[in-house]
Amino acid sequence: MSREAQFAAILDQLGYSFEAGLKLGGDYAATMRHEGVVYVSGQIPRIDEEVIHPGRVGSEVSLKDARTAAMVSALRCLALVREQVGSLDNIRAILRMTVFVQSADAFTRQSEVANGASQVLYSVFGEAGAHTRTSVGVLRLPKNAPVEIDLIAAVT
Amino acid sequence: MSREAQFAAILDQLGYSFEAGLKLGGDYAATMRHEGVVYVSGQIPRIDEEVIHPGRVGSEVSLKDARTAAMVSALRCLALVREQVGSLDNIRAILRMTVFVQSADAFTRQSEVANGASQVLYSVFGEAGAHTRTSVGVLRLPKNAPVEIDLIAAVT
Amino acid sequence: MSREAQFAAILDQLGYSFEAGLKLGGDYAATMRHEGVVYVSGQIPRIDEEVIHPGRVGSEVSLKDARTAAMVSALRCLALVREQVGSLDNIRAILRMTVFVQSADAFTRQSEVANGASQVLYSVFGEAGAHTRTSVGVLRLPKNAPVEIDLIAAVT
Repeated sequence: MSREAQFAAILDQLGYSFEAGLKLGGDYAATMRHEGVVYVSGQIPRIDEEVIHPGRVGSEVSLKDARTAAMVSALRCLALVREQVGSLDNIRAILRMTVFVQSADAFTRQSEVANGASQVLYSVFGEAGAHTRTSVGVLRLPKNAPVEIDLIAAVT
Repeated sequence: MSREAQFAAILDQLGYSFEAGLKLGGDYAATMRHEGVVYVSGQIPRIDEEVIHPGRVGSEVSLKDARTAAMVSALRCLALVREQVGSLDNIRAILRMTVFVQSADAFTRQSEVANGASQVLYSVFGEAGAHTRTSVGVLRLPKNAPVEIDLIAAVT
Repeated sequence: MSREAQFAAILDQLGYSFEAGLKLGGDYAATMRHEGVVYVSGQIPRIDEEVIHPGRVGSEVSLKDARTAAMVSALRCLALVREQVGSLDNIRAILRMTVFVQSADAFTRQSEVANGASQVLYSVFGEAGAHTRTSVGVLRLPKNAPVEIDLIAAVT
């Protein structure tokens, strides 16, 4: 399956659509490109105007729902890189992904939440989905989002 | 107005001065340059020896004061890039800005705090102030600072 | 002393060994290289299967133990860059280090924890150990780790 088809299949399986556009939460750019590297702004799992699965992961939000949210945030990142470079086929590598998880006080399974986002990358890009990753548990995220993800991609 | 004049005007309007220098909080470099990209260390809103508006945003610190603090942190970042490249005119673009907000337990308006920093970039650089941004709410910051901001800039 | 000897001496003084390998905590790459820049995934202070000094810094974990943990995380980062580029001598500069400290509610000395990691860089590389740094206090880290550190290095 092509990258575009794989991307569409994951989003469809989750039951979401980006057709209403990818709204940002402030006065900044979705992506910036500099000599073959694209930076993507931090993405919360917003579908249209709504943040899916809001709350603290580990208490108000289950691990399963948090993983879904992480998948949506990762898909949003990829969709924004695609807007910048025209096609997912122009992404050479994902250099860095940072996953912030809005965590309940005792929740220490941030890596398992982040695995949802990592699996999106491997599903879409295959071996080219290899990436470095940092996962941390934070007190609060904008709009009570369960996760926020940003990334840096190498593009052609 | 020139970038330098705009920078000076914002700092003056806030009622602060960097003439005493930009003290760092540990054993590291303020900036590192590599092939047209400058990395800036995380900046808390320190004026001389003092952190302005210390405390948790949303309880001890108002949104308005947190935005002021974010503006000061952003101005510090720009001043440090300027030390590295000689002039604000040598900054081509701001590729990434990360805004950490020391948040009260229920505070979810980190994006509005970060907008203070973003507005500094647009005020100083105009359209060239476009940047990607990640805003998160953390439990604690060094010296009880309300915000900490780092950035990556493209320079000539 | 050579960089390799200095690295080995620090690890030995701490009483640890990486001979069992550097296990990662999820489905991602330890490092990614792109045109002279290596990104390293966030490293918790894991020795073999065990995270050393788990808990919140400032309550369950002392400043001294947190600094030791930061040193181990920094050493892990360097070991992973070395795997990518063959030798510590192929590291030109450390462009960015981010230090996440799992903090007790009232703990504001994240910079002092991070100084442990910075000292590793200066000890191994001398003046070439100069680096930018961002230190923040987060609510939770994977596996209850006291610190997590990632970095970006310029390499040859």
